[in-house]
Amino acid sequence: MSIVLGANQYGKAECRLVRIDRDTPRHRITDVSVTSQLRGDLEAAHTVGDNSHVVATDTQKNTVYAFARDGLGAIEDFALRLGRHFTDSFDWIDGGRWEIEQYSWARVPSGTDGYDHSFVKSSDEKRNTVVTIDETGPTVISGVSDLVVLNSTASEFWGYPKDRYTTLKETTDRILATSVSARWRYLSTDLDFDKVFDDVRSIMLDAFASTHSLALQQTLFQMGTQVLEAHPEIGEIKFSMPNIHHFLVDLEPFGLDNPGEVFYVADRPYGLIEATVKRDDVPDAGHVWATVPGFC
Amino acid sequence: MSIVLGANQYGKAECRLVRIDRDTPRHRITDVSVTSQLRGDLEAAHTVGDNSHVVATDTQKNTVYAFARDGLGAIEDFALRLGRHFTDSFDWIDGGRWEIEQYSWARVPSGTDGYDHSFVKSSDEKRNTVVTIDETGPTVISGVSDLVVLNSTASEFWGYPKDRYTTLKETTDRILATSVSARWRYLSTDLDFDKVFDDVRSIMLDAFASTHSLALQQTLFQMGTQVLEAHPEIGEIKFSMPNIHHFLVDLEPFGLDNPGEVFYVADRPYGLIEATVKRDDVPDAGHVWATVPGFC
Amino acid sequence: MSIVLGANQYGKAECRLVRIDRDTPRHRITDVSVTSQLRGDLEAAHTVGDNSHVVATDTQKNTVYAFARDGLGAIEDFALRLGRHFTDSFDWIDGGRWEIEQYSWARVPSGTDGYDHSFVKSSDEKRNTVVTIDETGPTVISGVSDLVVLNSTASEFWGYPKDRYTTLKETTDRILATSVSARWRYLSTDLDFDKVFDDVRSIMLDAFASTHSLALQQTLFQMGTQVLEAHPEIGEIKFSMPNIHHFLVDLEPFGLDNPGEVFYVADRPYGLIEATVKRDDVPDAGHVWATVPGFC
Amino acid sequence: MSIVLGANQYGKAECRLVRIDRDTPRHRITDVSVTSQLRGDLEAAHTVGDNSHVVATDTQKNTVYAFARDGLGAIEDFALRLGRHFTDSFDWIDGGRWEIEQYSWARVPSGTDGYDHSFVKSSDEKRNTVVTIDETGPTVISGVSDLVVLNSTASEFWGYPKDRYTTLKETTDRILATSVSARWRYLSTDLDFDKVFDDVRSIMLDAFASTHSLALQQTLFQMGTQVLEAHPEIGEIKFSMPNIHHFLVDLEPFGLDNPGEVFYVADRPYGLIEATVKRDDVPDAGHVWATVPGFC
Repeated sequence: MSIVLGANQYGKAECRLVRIDRDTPRHRITDVSVTSQLRGDLEAAHTVGDNSHVVATDTQKNTVYAFARDGLGAIEDFALRLGRHFTDSFDWIDGGRWEIEQYSWARVPSGTDGYDHSFVKSSDEKRNTVVTIDETGPTVISGVSDLVVLNSTASEFWGYPKDRYTTLKETTDRILATSVSARWRYLSTDLDFDKVFDDVRSIMLDAFASTHSLALQQTLFQMGTQVLEAHPEIGEIKFSMPNIHHFLVDLEPFGLDNPGEVFYVADRPYGLIEATVKRDDVPDAGHVWATVPGFC
Repeated sequence: MSIVLGANQYGKAECRLVRIDRDTPRHRITDVSVTSQLRGDLEAAHTVGDNSHVVATDTQKNTVYAFARDGLGAIEDFALRLGRHFTDSFDWIDGGRWEIEQYSWARVPSGTDGYDHSFVKSSDEKRNTVVTIDETGPTVISGVSDLVVLNSTASEFWGYPKDRYTTLKETTDRILATSVSARWRYLSTDLDFDKVFDDVRSIMLDAFASTHSLALQQTLFQMGTQVLEAHPEIGEIKFSMPNIHHFLVDLEPFGLDNPGEVFYVADRPYGLIEATVKRDDVPDAGHVWATVPGFC
Repeated sequence: MSIVLGANQYGKAECRLVRIDRDTPRHRITDVSVTSQLRGDLEAAHTVGDNSHVVATDTQKNTVYAFARDGLGAIEDFALRLGRHFTDSFDWIDGGRWEIEQYSWARVPSGTDGYDHSFVKSSDEKRNTVVTIDETGPTVISGVSDLVVLNSTASEFWGYPKDRYTTLKETTDRILATSVSARWRYLSTDLDFDKVFDDVRSIMLDAFASTHSLALQQTLFQMGTQVLEAHPEIGEIKFSMPNIHHFLVDLEPFGLDNPGEVFYVADRPYGLIEATVKRDDVPDAGHVWATVPGFC
Repeated sequence: MSIVLGANQYGKAECRLVRIDRDTPRHRITDVSVTSQLRGDLEAAHTVGDNSHVVATDTQKNTVYAFARDGLGAIEDFALRLGRHFTDSFDWIDGGRWEIEQYSWARVPSGTDGYDHSFVKSSDEKRNTVVTIDETGPTVISGVSDLVVLNSTASEFWGYPKDRYTTLKETTDRILATSVSARWRYLSTDLDFDKVFDDVRSIMLDAFASTHSLALQQTLFQMGTQVLEAHPEIGEIKFSMPNIHHFLVDLEPFGLDNPGEVFYVADRPYGLIEATVKRDDVPDAGHVWATVPGFC
């Protein structure tokens, strides 16, 4: 038996980058956080501190900013461009992982179209992508996080098994609230990623709102199914959805009823529902999902 | 000399409350965090642990939820209602502080009007109020926090003094970005608070966007002045505005220019600009501002 | 009536600075976050964007790092040194506020004394100071935050008034837990601040642990009184202490008792107890406390 | 092609639990956050909202608190006990994931042994475990997070490749600082987990401190190797270690040198070094690592 180096990767994380497109007086803003991580023949760095194969994380950072000079485009395309650069430029780098998180801004309102060069941060929701390159080539997994949604009715929960430790009361009308984290795997890399993202987001919102829910699992599965039905270029989608509990406050001690109106919102503990929805003929991609933490 | 009890207050902080108005199939949602703190003759609790004057913080919390049964209205009105209840109900409670922070939701889009009972969290921005009651009666201070705005041009910074420690280069074109925290003091309590809030927020956004800025201080003062000019019911307004630095990346080592397009966004340190804009004939209210942390 | 500039200050916040004292092979580490804010004749910057009085926040940052070259000493002394520099160097700067937060490190254990140049972050607790300079000269307010303590017994809560909204049960044995934020005002600036800090912290811990508590207020007052009794150089001390609720879990539905052993720890809401303990002959200093947010 | 349910799990996350052992006047405290997630035949819940197999997340929470009545022991043993209960009690539950994070407390100092029932939170560092049960039985992966360490010298970085985007200067003396996240997989479940944890932590600290480092990768590999050499019951260990940059401040513009004494600590971006160190004869366990997010 000997002790050896296993899977490894390294790079620069969370390069905060704002790009202003100012070719016309009507500016556009792109606001992202970019992480670049390389894989390859890096054993000597670990075993003897030989850095001759270690493309410095500082160099990776510089490359991110330099590449932004030509514009970013969709975050998926920018990540692919970075990935191809590093794997093409260094013989011993044969793969890696490029992750980008994007923050959204709206124009400050003015007349019909808003100001030309003034912006206000919109939702806390983030769009993201993880591009992995390995011996099978690049794989693009994109997603959204912190998409917080709530149905104030049309949610039930009953019919679950009861045991010695069960005290929960069944209900046919509750608040259903969650913060959607979703990630979907594209089956190709030649796509209009911005357009697909907008549509996937819309479908998920619509499915959440229009599903009369008997379980958060059912809502999740509807969201995934409707995305896959509309987008053949997506092979599978994973969700991690906390059940943010809104407990109906018992106002009876104060001589008041509470017909579904006043709720206490709990921080912890929370339910946590995670599942994959996929096409049954799509090959497994466990090795790329391993780079995307937080989903089962 | 003896050791004595000075200023004190106590209560329950951050009661997370969601109220659903469901009198019609088209639900409305109000999402708030309520803090209630009482002041009065509470010396015995401190000196000998006699709780006969200590309205339990748990009771304060219950009261918040019970009062929500009748609807909330504007957060200022709800805070005033709570404050009057506690000061009216207990002889020895002669004042206090009620703070409410409100989170905003939009309807999930559907057709022209959106879904009836499905909501999506909108901006991370928060509306807030602090109602203080003391021997002068109630004072309402309202505000907004985490209102993040950015101008991609029309900001300069030059003409500052140079000393031994100055290395900053002057600039006539930079990004100006900040996260606005603003609090304004109302001169009365009988107002349409929702309507005023919306208008103050609009004025601040508009002033930020339309001011050609030579200093963040100048932008701040414009924002305050325009609010006060439009709203005689407001006596003064305080701002705390970080200067969120967006540094132009030096791409020259890579043989590239950077004409105001690629920026590195720094977390820390950051500039911090704080000031009050006020009417010169408004009486000082230092004693109530003392309850509103984070402003000079 | 006209609209005018009121209280204002500006500067650079959260300059993260680590200093290594390496005059011998046994290194010492000082890890701080420094905020510098200036006050004075700054009206023109606000009204017309004239920066001729605006010592750039970047210059303030540079000064912090340059001054660290000579060593830091106690954070109070370093803040005083910065304050005197700025108010002495610029005619129009007549005051300001210098805040420092300090993080603690221990040596990585090795033999009796630990390694010479290897450190491990210890508690999340922070020591801090705010030095204010105004027309009365400098005032030093120091403190501690995130000092989390818990008594597993010797805490009671009963005898509080009951009204329509009271449901809390009285108890003679509960967990008492809080995260102490304390700030005390020194009556002079010529002190061994490190030594006093260590002693004040010990006294507070000791008072928390040894007080049989009928109310968190009583514990707080004991902590303050014992600090003032031991330290004549301190004029007053303010506390902000959340009551971090540890609720005894009702295990009866599962056929189990729970004799003070299993607790659910709640995040929100929480109790919030704030009070000042002071010498009755010490002059009011409201104007300097206004610079220290978060205390009543 | 049809759309199907893939991998899934659900449960209750972050049950905050404090247990006081009070069989003698000298109390002991255990402070944890417990997450329970179940896997099995849960398809009907997703496809048609049939909850007959859905052991309510509320029931899982109740079970956590009820089991704590008998004491917790090592967090690994408590997680195993929970896992066995759920997989034994419900036919259709054939696996799951139980994660526990533990917070550390010290006694408030008093004499030689400290107070009997008063505690102060110590480091922000956390001990954790993830127990996975699947068709191969239970697997225990334990770890530590937020273990922040710093060497003030004995770290170099040079010899890395230079390309068009390289601007970093080589150095033979820098600060090396990181926040260690480590997770190791046990090869059995019948161990004195508390004892092993303490020893693994000591070995990692010692290896970090005593390695003269040419690359953070080298330090990491030393930490892993020394753990595996001392603990045959551990098959592999994974690290995720940010390189927390401490940049030497250039004081030359101010006429000062800076011989490794004054550093600016950056928040973002940061280096990110991740690697596995393992025995070459240990079977792959990708399926269980998939439950432990954040490691490559």
